[in-house]
Amino acid sequence: MQWTVYLSGEIHTDWREQIIEGCAAAGLPVNFVSPVTDHAASDAAGDVLGEEGKSFWRDHKSSKVNAIRTKNLIEKSDIAVIRFGDKYKQWNAAFDAGFCAALGKPYITLHDESIVHPLKEVDAAAMAWAEEPAQVVEVLRYVVS
Amino acid sequence: MQWTVYLSGEIHTDWREQIIEGCAAAGLPVNFVSPVTDHAASDAAGDVLGEEGKSFWRDHKSSKVNAIRTKNLIEKSDIAVIRFGDKYKQWNAAFDAGFCAALGKPYITLHDESIVHPLKEVDAAAMAWAEEPAQVVEVLRYVVS
Amino acid sequence: MQWTVYLSGEIHTDWREQIIEGCAAAGLPVNFVSPVTDHAASDAAGDVLGEEGKSFWRDHKSSKVNAIRTKNLIEKSDIAVIRFGDKYKQWNAAFDAGFCAALGKPYITLHDESIVHPLKEVDAAAMAWAEEPAQVVEVLRYVVS
Amino acid sequence: MQWTVYLSGEIHTDWREQIIEGCAAAGLPVNFVSPVTDHAASDAAGDVLGEEGKSFWRDHKSSKVNAIRTKNLIEKSDIAVIRFGDKYKQWNAAFDAGFCAALGKPYITLHDESIVHPLKEVDAAAMAWAEEPAQVVEVLRYVVS
Amino acid sequence: MQWTVYLSGEIHTDWREQIIEGCAAAGLPVNFVSPVTDHAASDAAGDVLGEEGKSFWRDHKSSKVNAIRTKNLIEKSDIAVIRFGDKYKQWNAAFDAGFCAALGKPYITLHDESIVHPLKEVDAAAMAWAEEPAQVVEVLRYVVS
Amino acid sequence: MQWTVYLSGEIHTDWREQIIEGCAAAGLPVNFVSPVTDHAASDAAGDVLGEEGKSFWRDHKSSKVNAIRTKNLIEKSDIAVIRFGDKYKQWNAAFDAGFCAALGKPYITLHDESIVHPLKEVDAAAMAWAEEPAQVVEVLRYVVS
Amino acid sequence: MQWTVYLSGEIHTDWREQIIEGCAAAGLPVNFVSPVTDHAASDAAGDVLGEEGKSFWRDHKSSKVNAIRTKNLIEKSDIAVIRFGDKYKQWNAAFDAGFCAALGKPYITLHDESIVHPLKEVDAAAMAWAEEPAQVVEVLRYVVS
Amino acid sequence: MQWTVYLSGEIHTDWREQIIEGCAAAGLPVNFVSPVTDHAASDAAGDVLGEEGKSFWRDHKSSKVNAIRTKNLIEKSDIAVIRFGDKYKQWNAAFDAGFCAALGKPYITLHDESIVHPLKEVDAAAMAWAEEPAQVVEVLRYVVS
Repeated sequence: MQWTVYLSGEIHTDWREQIIEGCAAAGLPVNFVSPVTDHAASDAAGDVLGEEGKSFWRDHKSSKVNAIRTKNLIEKSDIAVIRFGDKYKQWNAAFDAGFCAALGKPYITLHDESIVHPLKEVDAAAMAWAEEPAQVVEVLRYVVS
Repeated sequence: MQWTVYLSGEIHTDWREQIIEGCAAAGLPVNFVSPVTDHAASDAAGDVLGEEGKSFWRDHKSSKVNAIRTKNLIEKSDIAVIRFGDKYKQWNAAFDAGFCAALGKPYITLHDESIVHPLKEVDAAAMAWAEEPAQVVEVLRYVVS
Repeated sequence: MQWTVYLSGEIHTDWREQIIEGCAAAGLPVNFVSPVTDHAASDAAGDVLGEEGKSFWRDHKSSKVNAIRTKNLIEKSDIAVIRFGDKYKQWNAAFDAGFCAALGKPYITLHDESIVHPLKEVDAAAMAWAEEPAQVVEVLRYVVS
Repeated sequence: MQWTVYLSGEIHTDWREQIIEGCAAAGLPVNFVSPVTDHAASDAAGDVLGEEGKSFWRDHKSSKVNAIRTKNLIEKSDIAVIRFGDKYKQWNAAFDAGFCAALGKPYITLHDESIVHPLKEVDAAAMAWAEEPAQVVEVLRYVVS
Repeated sequence: MQWTVYLSGEIHTDWREQIIEGCAAAGLPVNFVSPVTDHAASDAAGDVLGEEGKSFWRDHKSSKVNAIRTKNLIEKSDIAVIRFGDKYKQWNAAFDAGFCAALGKPYITLHDESIVHPLKEVDAAAMAWAEEPAQVVEVLRYVVS
Repeated sequence: MQWTVYLSGEIHTDWREQIIEGCAAAGLPVNFVSPVTDHAASDAAGDVLGEEGKSFWRDHKSSKVNAIRTKNLIEKSDIAVIRFGDKYKQWNAAFDAGFCAALGKPYITLHDESIVHPLKEVDAAAMAWAEEPAQVVEVLRYVVS
Repeated sequence: MQWTVYLSGEIHTDWREQIIEGCAAAGLPVNFVSPVTDHAASDAAGDVLGEEGKSFWRDHKSSKVNAIRTKNLIEKSDIAVIRFGDKYKQWNAAFDAGFCAALGKPYITLHDESIVHPLKEVDAAAMAWAEEPAQVVEVLRYVVS
Repeated sequence: MQWTVYLSGEIHTDWREQIIEGCAAAGLPVNFVSPVTDHAASDAAGDVLGEEGKSFWRDHKSSKVNAIRTKNLIEKSDIAVIRFGDKYKQWNAAFDAGFCAALGKPYITLHDESIVHPLKEVDAAAMAWAEEPAQVVEVLRYVVS
């Protein structure tokens, strides 16, 4: 059986690559999907639909275009990995976690111990908390083998 | 018809009271429900089930006890109002937004313009964005009358 | 048992009043709910959330505020009556019909014979087609008695 | 990943071909599905089941046969594009939009600015509004790449 | 707690009255709902919507009007009792059983032993088979007390 | 796209073969699935699980084994064809129709005009009524092409 | 708001009474529902439908009659408490836990530390684990206040 | 059509192998999936996420990691076989049965006659009860052929 894993959250470090390469090295039957992780492209996703004077509406249009992708990919995935870094608000990652929780989609959080307390509700609905990408690879190896 | 509105998010200002009092003054047929908003009580919600040595597990137990309440109340509500303040991570608020989005539960965000950009995914799935509690009261007045 | 009936569509004639009064005269256990039928108020539903320069966004905001109400009311209703008049596009009425169809919510269409052909998809998913409000009253009398 | 896109609505211009060819030229992994777009064939879809004296029942039978196809295709699609032209009532397109909205199926509307106001409810539940097929191609390119 | 029981099927004997009176005598907290059991009225349910030349369409219209009632009542019920007599085709009763089965709605069949074999699929999805109304009363007494 | 069609009901004539061969001759992309149509085998489906003294329980066991198959196949199908012949009770066919109706699975009935009246509820929830297998082939040809 | 709590599992100690009385003493807005806890009555629930020679079928009939009650009550409840004692197999309690888990119904387990290991899957899907009825009362007090 | 069968429960005898080999020998189009059946590995599934001082939390973490696998596999399966042996509590097997029941997923129980009574609720929601793996093979052969 082939598994599909959604990689949500932080885009400033190479955690996605570490997980993808770790799973490839282990020969796991896993496909990875992600939101568009190019920040500038993501912010501009709706620009083709016309310029906006207010930044609220530019953000709104782009976020909806991005949501066409992310909603579809989350629903098609078997597992999500949701990464929180040490910078920025990252509310979209917490939003994805809530979305998964309501769908009953199992997800794994990936974050440092330093942010355990503010993430307590997100972690409480998760199936696992990992601190390192290598741990996620190990969990996936166990789950899909 | 009686409406039920869930008030999610920030607990450091009196936005809940403003909305509740505004709706009462307008005589609206609305019941309000909320998570437990006493921060210390919320952090200690699971303590009755036994002490924990690690803070991760104390948080975990308390968050799950809180989730018994919040999941039930969100599912029973007709509308959610989700408030983001200017401090703290507030990932639980974004989590609630994602939860509502997946359930198809309409929600209104309440936050300053200064955080429009990091909240763009949360706002994109919302039915309205308000900057002031009085605006939320006005929207509710319109919706439920 | 008390029944709830949603009255969707055209706002320029008194078809709602005819149905409501007909059911009241017959002593039927039916509550009626509707979208906001004051056209100007409906168009302005989002204005309290801030002025918009582009009419697209004004419409967008107001329609979403209206949808908080209509989505809730349709989901709570047992039956919808969807009225098409002889003027305007009335795409919102057809949208409501499709929404009901996907939810498995029974609906009755109310329209003249002259528009049977363009409404054929909408009628095909309906449980009944009536030409006059008095016929709707008769159907409701039969159904809820 | 292969994506499936449903093309709903107006059948008098070549907007479907423009989108299909644009996506093919871009090498996108998208399959397109549509209702039967031959107007006469669509109106006659139920004739094989027996002639009808009343046009209402001929329309009824044909629309139900068409709905076997359209309901299946919409449910199997990942995204819908819903096109409104400048002629005819096009209530079936708005019906499809409402159907998608209730299912949580993301859809993109495609129409001129001149009909923004009557389409406001349909657009409010859409993930994007495009004025030209080329914009739809660009959105799909972004979403599925 | 108040329970709602749907009484589906045969309309030529007084089995409904026996169950209703038996439960009333036992003081059970049960409301009973039923399709319209006046055969002539049921066949004519759609006549108010206009005369039909073909009996197929008269039946079609009336059955859909009846379905507005029955679909709502089945969905609101906690338990269905489905009665098969010794005459007529009674396909509507078997249809209701299949409808309940797909919804996960528990139902009790009520029929003679002589028709066990042709009802085997219907009984296989039932929660109980009774031969006499008094047995149904006993089962309900046990279940709701 | 490949379509899956479930063929439910009467097992004494060659209607299944006519539809399957007709669709094959037309080159349609359709897979057909059916319950086990060998009557004796179907009645004995549960015998491997142990002999039963009472015919009720033999029927019960066999029907449940058959239901493992039929429930799965109906849920995986895009369309059902439900055939009623002129003999026997055929309550299982009506049960399948009700099951499809509750799932929102489109189905086509296939039966003579002589039984239109007792099948009126079953036909009212159907998407089409055909009298001959060749008509079903034509409808499928139209729907899946 | 009134809450409904389902009390599942062991019937040989007074844990139900302790929880009910504890909540009553605290004045909590909670209704409690339970399966029939009279063991002999529960085993005999189906006897009114006719004697059975094989104990398998007597158990089968009685369990299905009991399930009419329990399935309804679990689905109507907001929270379940699932109690495991130190004797017997108690597979029905674990079955109820799995049923709740699949429905997304929050449940609290109540059992001694000595059986933590064999209950690990059941506890993993629970929102809380309590060792004493008084702890359950405290959790409910927190959750519903 | 290819069928997927989930094999849940007891891990101390070779019942899985017997079913898999029996189906292979019969050339059945069935894929089998299972939880991780290596007891020590299963208990240690969460260890990679960090050591725990309390056995409750070690169990908790490992069970959640296992649940990522089992929940996915049960939902993807067409049929489950749930095996109860003569030792241990086996609450996870009963939990899986309840999970399947709530999802409407057909399952077959496999156990000795000696435990019919404590398994009565689990068997009541099952589609078949087998005492030997060879019987399961026969049922599968019948169902999928």
